[in-house]
Amino acid sequence: MEKLTAHDLAKAQKEISVAEFFERNKHILGFGNLTRALVTTIKEAVDNALDACEDVGILPDIIVKVTNGEDENECLVAVEDNGPGIVSEQIKHIFGRLLYGSRFHAIRQSRGQQGIGISAVVLYSQLTTGKHAKIMSKIQENLPVVVIELAIDTNKNRGDVINKSLDHWDKTTGTRVEVPIHADYVRGRRYAYDYLRNTSIINPHAKITFVEPDGTTHIFERTSDIIPKKSEEIKPHPQGIELGTLIKIAKNSRARKLSSFLKTEFVSMGSRTTMLVCEKAELDPNMNLTDLTRNQFQNLHRAFKQVKIMAPPMNCLSPITESLIRRSLKQETKEISPEFIITASRPPTAYAGNPFQVEVGLVYGGNLPKDEQIKIMRFANRVPLLYQQGGCIITQAIENIDWRRYGLDQRSGKGIPNGPAIILVHVASTQIPFTSESKEAIADITEIENEIKLALRICARNVERHIRKKVRRKKTRDKFILITKILPEIAKKSASMLDRPVPILDPVITKIMDVIWIEDFIEFETVKGYPVQTTLLESNSEKNSKSMITKSTIAVYNYKPKPQKFTLFAVIPEGAVVWSVSPEPSQKTTHYLKWKIEDIPPAQKIDLTFKLAGLQKGDVDENDLYVANINPANVIGADKWEGE
Amino acid sequence: MEKLTAHDLAKAQKEISVAEFFERNKHILGFGNLTRALVTTIKEAVDNALDACEDVGILPDIIVKVTNGEDENECLVAVEDNGPGIVSEQIKHIFGRLLYGSRFHAIRQSRGQQGIGISAVVLYSQLTTGKHAKIMSKIQENLPVVVIELAIDTNKNRGDVINKSLDHWDKTTGTRVEVPIHADYVRGRRYAYDYLRNTSIINPHAKITFVEPDGTTHIFERTSDIIPKKSEEIKPHPQGIELGTLIKIAKNSRARKLSSFLKTEFVSMGSRTTMLVCEKAELDPNMNLTDLTRNQFQNLHRAFKQVKIMAPPMNCLSPITESLIRRSLKQETKEISPEFIITASRPPTAYAGNPFQVEVGLVYGGNLPKDEQIKIMRFANRVPLLYQQGGCIITQAIENIDWRRYGLDQRSGKGIPNGPAIILVHVASTQIPFTSESKEAIADITEIENEIKLALRICARNVERHIRKKVRRKKTRDKFILITKILPEIAKKSASMLDRPVPILDPVITKIMDVIWIEDFIEFETVKGYPVQTTLLESNSEKNSKSMITKSTIAVYNYKPKPQKFTLFAVIPEGAVVWSVSPEPSQKTTHYLKWKIEDIPPAQKIDLTFKLAGLQKGDVDENDLYVANINPANVIGADKWEGE
Repeated sequence: MEKLTAHDLAKAQKEISVAEFFERNKHILGFGNLTRALVTTIKEAVDNALDACEDVGILPDIIVKVTNGEDENECLVAVEDNGPGIVSEQIKHIFGRLLYGSRFHAIRQSRGQQGIGISAVVLYSQLTTGKHAKIMSKIQENLPVVVIELAIDTNKNRGDVINKSLDHWDKTTGTRVEVPIHADYVRGRRYAYDYLRNTSIINPHAKITFVEPDGTTHIFERTSDIIPKKSEEIKPHPQGIELGTLIKIAKNSRARKLSSFLKTEFVSMGSRTTMLVCEKAELDPNMNLTDLTRNQFQNLHRAFKQVKIMAPPMNCLSPITESLIRRSLKQETKEISPEFIITASRPPTAYAGNPFQVEVGLVYGGNLPKDEQIKIMRFANRVPLLYQQGGCIITQAIENIDWRRYGLDQRSGKGIPNGPAIILVHVASTQIPFTSESKEAIADITEIENEIKLALRICARNVERHIRKKVRRKKTRDKFILITKILPEIAKKSASMLDRPVPILDPVITKIMDVIWIEDFIEFETVKGYPVQTTLLESNSEKNSKSMITKSTIAVYNYKPKPQKFTLFAVIPEGAVVWSVSPEPSQKTTHYLKWKIEDIPPAQKIDLTFKLAGLQKGDVDENDLYVANINPANVIGADKWEGE
Repeated sequence: MEKLTAHDLAKAQKEISVAEFFERNKHILGFGNLTRALVTTIKEAVDNALDACEDVGILPDIIVKVTNGEDENECLVAVEDNGPGIVSEQIKHIFGRLLYGSRFHAIRQSRGQQGIGISAVVLYSQLTTGKHAKIMSKIQENLPVVVIELAIDTNKNRGDVINKSLDHWDKTTGTRVEVPIHADYVRGRRYAYDYLRNTSIINPHAKITFVEPDGTTHIFERTSDIIPKKSEEIKPHPQGIELGTLIKIAKNSRARKLSSFLKTEFVSMGSRTTMLVCEKAELDPNMNLTDLTRNQFQNLHRAFKQVKIMAPPMNCLSPITESLIRRSLKQETKEISPEFIITASRPPTAYAGNPFQVEVGLVYGGNLPKDEQIKIMRFANRVPLLYQQGGCIITQAIENIDWRRYGLDQRSGKGIPNGPAIILVHVASTQIPFTSESKEAIADITEIENEIKLALRICARNVERHIRKKVRRKKTRDKFILITKILPEIAKKSASMLDRPVPILDPVITKIMDVIWIEDFIEFETVKGYPVQTTLLESNSEKNSKSMITKSTIAVYNYKPKPQKFTLFAVIPEGAVVWSVSPEPSQKTTHYLKWKIEDIPPAQKIDLTFKLAGLQKGDVDENDLYVANINPANVIGADKWEGE
């Protein structure tokens, strides 16, 4: 072999176009096999449709239609929305260029981020079928629809308009994408269905229609008319920024002075904070921005971390909320009739300056299989994640919790636990750190893992509490039945046999039981017209419709030998408003009701009732009850009050 | 809120530079946290150094030096090689542009593929420290070294030479990269060490020196002087190509006629195959390439799959080889003293037209923990994969095998099994389908998963055989000791007590044992000068040095009551050459030795010996022995011969 030199090697060096790169690495974009290609195509188009509708405040109405293509393993996927449409000059860029989009430079929560997704679909379509994508867009009621046939020039990463025409479309506004792709419909069908179903669960404001090649039509109806609060765009937070980025922002800034640079380019930088930062960095706030040296930038960067700066505003996030997660899980598991559903959410926080928030839900018991791994449902910015479970920080966080401490079965305290449970985790962020452009798994960012773990532990502790309560109640219930049902029968019978008066059993009963027994019953009533408190609720649109009232009755039995006096608390579920309470509580806050219970005589019971508005049927299975001023070991059905 | 329209949304649409994209998504490149950033930086630089050296046939001598930076959490990483250097005009492109490189368009196995790795390191350095990278390159002994300080303009994705100078460097040729990075050395140290150690294990021809900030120096010595066979560049194979790519290649081809296009742009397309393909596609081989319509391309594409086309040549791959894997595992586990090491490799095959090959190794027993998950060692194109184990097809393949059938402990037949084992998997390919640009995990490509599973099953069956053999031998050994040691003692003692002659025990022994007992012993001898067969071996360079001879002695005991006559086979390990055999075998092939064993009388034994050259000490622990023409149930120590 002739010896090669650096010059020989240099000849081979070439630029790689980003489109070529992704064409070669199509698995990175979620097109690794024919099943996945189908799901990814639908997903990218639907995500875009949802984002577009929400951007302009339209309730999404999305149709996904798959038909057989002319070749075996070829499908035609069409996705149509009722969004604002796309101005015609932008179509070739949005669908024909990778890394082109509106959301990359904006710091706010949205499904699309990178400007890759939908153009990757067009690229995949062209790569596998050699055909063009067809895009239809109507941006105003009195305008025609623009129909564009599009190809991608991968050497240049540019969209080529092959054909452009105008037509009539019987729709106010909207977009339709049609792509022929190489895909396996038979195997991919189930995943496509799951993706759409889970999307509809987590986006109850969207109506999604799915038409299969044989004409079968699935309609996932809208279950809410409220468009999620639009997340606001924010500027970067100084504490999350890298030194290099700081220098870059300064280079591109229009500000002339250091102080105005700090105030205009970042959030949370008021005049006072700006002065403090400059002081700490030993820099004159009035100095010219262009005069700053690398060392001075470094001092500034250090000062950001030494001065207390307000957290970034969190209206850039749009979490699902616990009550919606609960409702979704309820819907998802209604055939399983689970024992309980628990949710938890963490306050928003940030990783590397990117705000994020974690919400979790846990379903336990019912017909869920006891001997299998628990099921994990992962969501990021309201998009279900179907693949790459093993490589996702959500899974890792679950695996790294010792669930044995919380009553689940888990070998050596690591790995996915076994047991009758489903765990749902939603991460909302201005930038979800996906492990790759296929957006199937979240990377292992320590801050995110920790937040997921904290949220899961809240859930887990509640699971443990539920299980403990259940076990304790079960033990006492046997006694209870014996005492309240069988003992009186025996007494009556023997009294009648002996022809003597029925003895008073109360002292015996209280002696055997020796507890306060609390039970609660929940009923749902429909009332006409909405309760007065409606303005506190999100759902104004339901004002004049029939409304649901949740009625709780709490029965407190004193099975102690002496009269008992204590305090009882009932926690008001998130999203609920108190409609009426009887008897009048001694305190009523937005979070709880508090009754001072005075001297229930032995073997007597009292009833407490309260009605809540603002919940849907089934939102609550049982009340969170707590007691104070009594030894909680003497109480079944309520825990020790740890509140203020 | 004022209603937004498509025009409002259009204003936000912007191009995203690829450098900006990766800057924002630095976790995708392996810079997700400060520990990983350290390892990725070292990895990218070392991978490049190894590739460069191998490209020109130089034995790599690589120095990795980490020193503390001026700031807390800042390190200076320097990686120096003795490769061919880089011509000075190319430096700013190779280190300063993402998606620029020599390997992307070439179909052959190499560590680097995408032209992202090292420029991502420079990008990360700049992002986190605001400083420049320093690159030194010397391409010829009598030339000075070029020293370049480099920045990246992320808006344009171009390298900016900040400073360029010439200097003297006391080195024939070579490259040095120095980057200041934000990293956590304390936590990252162990991973950096593991990466370099594993790299050295799998690249025994490389010498790697690792100098830590406190001056501690680790030298991973070269254990072989043979540079791996350079993989050859090939053209794409027609059967793996997508229709879109076919059309694109045709567009860019210089060929005028269809037939010459097919012959020049693809492998395995000889004149005959070309004619057959054209015939099947109903196309005139002499037609002008530019005249082909999309439909005709489609016919051509279909025809590729209908005609038998030779597999692509596999010299584009450079596997590790089983004997080297075995040696590496031996080295890796020498403190564990495992019971056995098993390797398996599959023939090369292809996914989507990309040739690939799977090799696996399995270590069992010894001091490996019995109650923990087995350890998995993953390699791709001779590069160790440290992170993202859960998201890798290698892990998935292991999890999807029911290891319980092979004697390992695995809950419900799924997941990573528990037991005293280490599994090593190496995937070699012209294009490793990594799940993301951080190159930490292989995507789930069905073909690759299947090959890994097939290779693992071969290993697993051998594990099972070993365990079964061990159990059976153990059972019989107790009898054996009783019979061959204790029984004669008793006979002697009782004879002397009774003053009678010692009885002949043979009939008793054979009656109790009733088996053929085969044992083998392996010794290693060093001989001077190399055995004659040396030309068959790879290692010519060792010709005149001392060589290792592996001597096996097989003892065959007949503990059956009658004389026994059967055939015995000894398999010759891969890479070994037979040096001498005694007694002369009845057949000797490159794969096995075969003896016809004639009538061993009861209670007698015979010895068979053979010496092998070409192996290193410890390459073989025990021989693979098989028997024929006898009921294998009557034999301990050899299995039934299933060969031809």
